[in-house]
Amino acid sequence: MKARARKGADRLVRGKKLLRHIHGAGGEAVVAGLGQISPDLARYIVEFAFGDIYSRKGLTLRERQIATVAGLVALGHAQPQLKSHIHGALNVGCRRKEILEIIIQLAVYAGFPAASNAAVSAREVFRERDARGLRN
Amino acid sequence: MKARARKGADRLVRGKKLLRHIHGAGGEAVVAGLGQISPDLARYIVEFAFGDIYSRKGLTLRERQIATVAGLVALGHAQPQLKSHIHGALNVGCRRKEILEIIIQLAVYAGFPAASNAAVSAREVFRERDARGLRN
Amino acid sequence: MKARARKGADRLVRGKKLLRHIHGAGGEAVVAGLGQISPDLARYIVEFAFGDIYSRKGLTLRERQIATVAGLVALGHAQPQLKSHIHGALNVGCRRKEILEIIIQLAVYAGFPAASNAAVSAREVFRERDARGLRN
Amino acid sequence: MKARARKGADRLVRGKKLLRHIHGAGGEAVVAGLGQISPDLARYIVEFAFGDIYSRKGLTLRERQIATVAGLVALGHAQPQLKSHIHGALNVGCRRKEILEIIIQLAVYAGFPAASNAAVSAREVFRERDARGLRN
Amino acid sequence: MKARARKGADRLVRGKKLLRHIHGAGGEAVVAGLGQISPDLARYIVEFAFGDIYSRKGLTLRERQIATVAGLVALGHAQPQLKSHIHGALNVGCRRKEILEIIIQLAVYAGFPAASNAAVSAREVFRERDARGLRN
Amino acid sequence: MKARARKGADRLVRGKKLLRHIHGAGGEAVVAGLGQISPDLARYIVEFAFGDIYSRKGLTLRERQIATVAGLVALGHAQPQLKSHIHGALNVGCRRKEILEIIIQLAVYAGFPAASNAAVSAREVFRERDARGLRN
Repeated sequence: MKARARKGADRLVRGKKLLRHIHGAGGEAVVAGLGQISPDLARYIVEFAFGDIYSRKGLTLRERQIATVAGLVALGHAQPQLKSHIHGALNVGCRRKEILEIIIQLAVYAGFPAASNAAVSAREVFRERDARGLRN
Repeated sequence: MKARARKGADRLVRGKKLLRHIHGAGGEAVVAGLGQISPDLARYIVEFAFGDIYSRKGLTLRERQIATVAGLVALGHAQPQLKSHIHGALNVGCRRKEILEIIIQLAVYAGFPAASNAAVSAREVFRERDARGLRN
Repeated sequence: MKARARKGADRLVRGKKLLRHIHGAGGEAVVAGLGQISPDLARYIVEFAFGDIYSRKGLTLRERQIATVAGLVALGHAQPQLKSHIHGALNVGCRRKEILEIIIQLAVYAGFPAASNAAVSAREVFRERDARGLRN
Repeated sequence: MKARARKGADRLVRGKKLLRHIHGAGGEAVVAGLGQISPDLARYIVEFAFGDIYSRKGLTLRERQIATVAGLVALGHAQPQLKSHIHGALNVGCRRKEILEIIIQLAVYAGFPAASNAAVSAREVFRERDARGLRN
Repeated sequence: MKARARKGADRLVRGKKLLRHIHGAGGEAVVAGLGQISPDLARYIVEFAFGDIYSRKGLTLRERQIATVAGLVALGHAQPQLKSHIHGALNVGCRRKEILEIIIQLAVYAGFPAASNAAVSAREVFRERDARGLRN
Repeated sequence: MKARARKGADRLVRGKKLLRHIHGAGGEAVVAGLGQISPDLARYIVEFAFGDIYSRKGLTLRERQIATVAGLVALGHAQPQLKSHIHGALNVGCRRKEILEIIIQLAVYAGFPAASNAAVSAREVFRERDARGLRN
């Protein structure tokens, strides 16, 4: 039992740490809000998405965020997650100009509507960050 | 005027050069095959996708390929293009292990079926490259 | 003519009955609202979706709602219909906990963004029902 | 009973007639094949898709086929249906060049992979028709 | 060379002209708004989508708008673009009744949720046009 | 270390057991094949999809398979996974007729092309099972 508790804690602790590192207080708030609907779904996001996947080697966090933002632009129906991960990408070193480059790049593959809606989400993120006095 | 004069030809020339640089003879064959169905659609891919977008600054070619592969994994219905761009990513310096990392990363956002089908496409690409004696 | 009128009425009557049984006054209001835009589209939903499909044997209404909620979670772009069918699922005997289980299950196949957005829609439905004093 | 039989027959007869008119023997074979898996699903396609929808006024059959082909290009995962409806569009007066125009038009909205895959399907249709000695 | 010289400027000029012709001041405002986020993305829409694609021969503008509206209904996640192109379709001669026919037609291929959400967007467009005193 | 090994083993062992129970030797072969491309992706499917999610209480395995089949029909681009989970659904007590009911139900929400392609996948599964002498 204790063993399990400890191991269970490992993925969770590692995930929480990465969630905070990538998404900051905003991301923690999003997951906490989701946790009020479904504690388990929120836990899987921390344990699996962050504890298992984001903590993998083989790509830099910056590269993982480029891949995630690109994938969310292509999905088209995931604007809240796209905004959250644009914040995340900027938090781990991407520049705003680079976010727009990813969006422009995806216009070729997912079409201009997906890219245009993503650009609108990007602007909202940029304004949120301006309001918080963030330069990037 | 003269500048623009050059520009008309530039997009096509620049696009062809980048198509060859990223996708090599295989990519040129794909576009040539498409050109036999619709010369204009093939030309737009070279002029717009490669001449306009891929030639932009702001992201490295390696980063653009990470974004493209991620977007195509998320789309789910674009296996031929995914295979073509996995080749392209490997041609501009991504390693096979990194392609699999992008695919694993996308399982979180597009689901395991999209990731599993992308992994099968990746294996086909790796085998094609093995058959051609490519180390990467 | 009379014959047709009667038969036409059959699918419509059967559909209206099932619409009311599954979705209650809320569902009738949604279809009525759609009918103000396109009476025919609203009629097809009642005749075909409810009169033909939902009235089929072979699955219980509870199972049909599980399938519908799961399909709408996977589609990702159908939040109004997802909310409407979460109401419907709860009306025909699913429990709130089971709706969340379907959503968690779909995170594996459609990804966490689709599941997270569905969870937010589920919470809105639960609150609407709380406000109406519904226990389930 | 007889009344219902007759009315049931109306939608079915009207649908079968339109199916034959738009898709010819090839379309009838597709529906017949589907009918061997699920007679009801095949019947709904004839009754609802063709008997109810295609038989509506307000758009010409040519315009309905333009809309259907465009929608199927955008869906991306419906190549068999896209091929079937490219045949249908050509059967009701669209020219091959116009099919390619629809596909090129959709590259803007659904992206180049969806358009490229649609172009490959179009070529297969054109070859099938060449083999049958059809000029259009 | 001279021909090409003109071409550079031509795409943008031709695109702006078509954008105004199809979408009017509303469309110009949308692109201008997008231009404040990403001037290049806005320029590609004018140069490529309108300057290259919409200016092609082979389909009437009315037919191109039918195809675009149908494709956007099928995409499901592009409501702002759907609304913009319903305006465009009405501006180039489609009637409101025909827009609803396209939406009803797509219910068969993209499902009733995509069609229902499109119908809601259509109503918003119709009301915007009513408010502007437009008969069509 | 041992503790972690044991706990790590827990999710994996539980997942493997459920994978075998739901999908049998065929499912194990699919995961093994995926494991030759990416051992980690295959492990996440066993640990997370089966060890975490399928092992949850709150829905019967039969209900989880109904939800999964419905979600995969709606996704449209996941035919290999759809076939695998139709097998799984039949293995945990669904009848073939019920699989077709789920597919017919989804025609309303995901459209007839998604349903028709799913029906073709279902027939392939039924034939595979006939060849193996399975009654269900």
